[in-house]
Amino acid sequence: MKIIKPTLVINKAQVIRNISRMAAVAGKHRLFFRPHFKTHQSRTVGEWFREKGISAITVSSVEMAEYFQEAGWQDITIAIPCNLREYEQIDQLAGKCDLKILIVNTEAVHFLKKKLNNPTSFLIEIDNGYHRTGLDASDKEAIDNILDAAGKNEILKFQGFLTHSGNSYLAKNLAEIRDIHKKTLEQMRELKIIYSSSYPEMIISLGDTPSCSLLNDFEGVDEIRPGNFVFFDLMQEQLKVCKMEEIAVALACPVIAKNAERLEIALYGGAIHLSKEFILDKHNNRIFGKVVLFNEKGWSKPVPDATLFSISQEHGIVKTKRKFFDQIKIGDIVGILPVHSCLTADAMGGYTMLNGLKIDHL
Amino acid sequence: MKIIKPTLVINKAQVIRNISRMAAVAGKHRLFFRPHFKTHQSRTVGEWFREKGISAITVSSVEMAEYFQEAGWQDITIAIPCNLREYEQIDQLAGKCDLKILIVNTEAVHFLKKKLNNPTSFLIEIDNGYHRTGLDASDKEAIDNILDAAGKNEILKFQGFLTHSGNSYLAKNLAEIRDIHKKTLEQMRELKIIYSSSYPEMIISLGDTPSCSLLNDFEGVDEIRPGNFVFFDLMQEQLKVCKMEEIAVALACPVIAKNAERLEIALYGGAIHLSKEFILDKHNNRIFGKVVLFNEKGWSKPVPDATLFSISQEHGIVKTKRKFFDQIKIGDIVGILPVHSCLTADAMGGYTMLNGLKIDHL
Repeated sequence: MKIIKPTLVINKAQVIRNISRMAAVAGKHRLFFRPHFKTHQSRTVGEWFREKGISAITVSSVEMAEYFQEAGWQDITIAIPCNLREYEQIDQLAGKCDLKILIVNTEAVHFLKKKLNNPTSFLIEIDNGYHRTGLDASDKEAIDNILDAAGKNEILKFQGFLTHSGNSYLAKNLAEIRDIHKKTLEQMRELKIIYSSSYPEMIISLGDTPSCSLLNDFEGVDEIRPGNFVFFDLMQEQLKVCKMEEIAVALACPVIAKNAERLEIALYGGAIHLSKEFILDKHNNRIFGKVVLFNEKGWSKPVPDATLFSISQEHGIVKTKRKFFDQIKIGDIVGILPVHSCLTADAMGGYTMLNGLKIDHL
Repeated sequence: MKIIKPTLVINKAQVIRNISRMAAVAGKHRLFFRPHFKTHQSRTVGEWFREKGISAITVSSVEMAEYFQEAGWQDITIAIPCNLREYEQIDQLAGKCDLKILIVNTEAVHFLKKKLNNPTSFLIEIDNGYHRTGLDASDKEAIDNILDAAGKNEILKFQGFLTHSGNSYLAKNLAEIRDIHKKTLEQMRELKIIYSSSYPEMIISLGDTPSCSLLNDFEGVDEIRPGNFVFFDLMQEQLKVCKMEEIAVALACPVIAKNAERLEIALYGGAIHLSKEFILDKHNNRIFGKVVLFNEKGWSKPVPDATLFSISQEHGIVKTKRKFFDQIKIGDIVGILPVHSCLTADAMGGYTMLNGLKIDHL
């Protein structure tokens, strides 16, 4: 692995362990596993899922759906409220694969019924407390309006209710994640009771990485769609959703400067590589990444007392203590575990495996 | 201008006004103008600079230097401490153009003297208080060590001292920006007095956008390197460095959902388009962008009481009041003025002009 500039290194063996673990969760609870591919956005990583028997995926844009359809994926859910301006692309995709889209308003139904020629399924997004998008589970009128507008036809066919409890990412502990999940389950189950008589094949789809990793009650759920688990990151580790050694990507950064007075190491690697996402340490200081060292099998555990505490466009500044400071030389490579792997992968637009092979990102 | 998904719209006329304004600052103070191209990273925007007589540029990576050298730029400063691992690329570039690199340690000098075959100039980076990289102006020993290690030779030739007062971006008001600039000037002038006897052709290079936009004292300075001014952004507007109408890029985002109870408008447009950079409003709430509406000449002033207060990977959520909420329909396009235009441009990787023409980004 020859690194000359910031490079996102992927540990394939760990990715595969992460996939296996989540596939086992789905298997144990008899849930259909539709992993979210927005985290990795890679056809190659997609193949690693396929080898584990996964046949259906979630994406977060039409462009991503096209990318994976071209790679042979035939069952794709675009899990963001439908962007009507992309109706031509959606219609073309629906002609090539089993496409599911997300609907949260009647405007979309009326518009798409006029514009689409190819059969498309839709899910109604439900908001169980995240308050990003989706209808309140209690808002039966809004749900009925969408179902009535769609009617029963083959072009726009109701598949069920979908939710994303993104608020679990903001939880402070396991109890909070459990509470969020419990409320979500109750609301989704109630919808199933109400609507399954008219739509006996309807499904309930949910699944953020924290809930799917930590919890055991999925009664009434048909499908899970976690995504981040494929790589994990410091945010998930802070939530105790994963262990540090389960994080499967690290940004390799050349050391470009050192400041002995401040015990700081400057890296070539900044906001355009990692994103500006941060977590807070116990003193409320921002952390943009933690430092690891590469070895033959991947990388070390995080170096104690070495955090990426400041980043600008291309620079990253690590604060550390004397021992590690003295160990690192100008021109060395250090690894940075990302705070939010989805954003880091998107910023980097590609990966390098431990054996040096490069792999794709949309 | 047909927008179907998040698109970074560039107002060429405003960009040219912004370039002219900064070129006039340089002209007025008889400073060599070496604009930083890391903000736009576009060959096309580079041509707009060239039309104003600019012949030398600053970049923040070897890759960016290669990109602009291939577009015909012949005088390029890479303003980040030299990444030794890219010495082959640096040597090749030095064979093709007048290349200046940044040095902050003797390790780099010893290494490059062995590795480079083509004449390269170097600047020593000075830290006047930003505390990112660079040597303390008072650390004459470290400066002398670098100069002694380099010796007087044609392969690695001392060009002068460079500083970036990035702390001006964190200033709270004009008085703070002035204080930062004053301290920087004093320290840089002192270096000039000390070293110009041995290096009579040495220069002093500085220039962040706030200082170059607002201040008038550049005595002793030879060269300025501001970058952000080409587009400006909400961060600069909050600092009163620019007016809202001088911001020259806006992200066009389709409206995908509305929540009447919370008066929120959901956009297709999130962290992978804008970056997660934020400013704080007076109540310490995070703002990820402000809303504008496109018109024939560009876009409106920001809509009052409409801020992008939350973003995730692809979603952006605008909080507003009833009047604007009712005005916006599903499928409409709204514009978002970015908090940090450099990061937004890098995330988007391309621009669309008001006439619909697409232009490049590295």
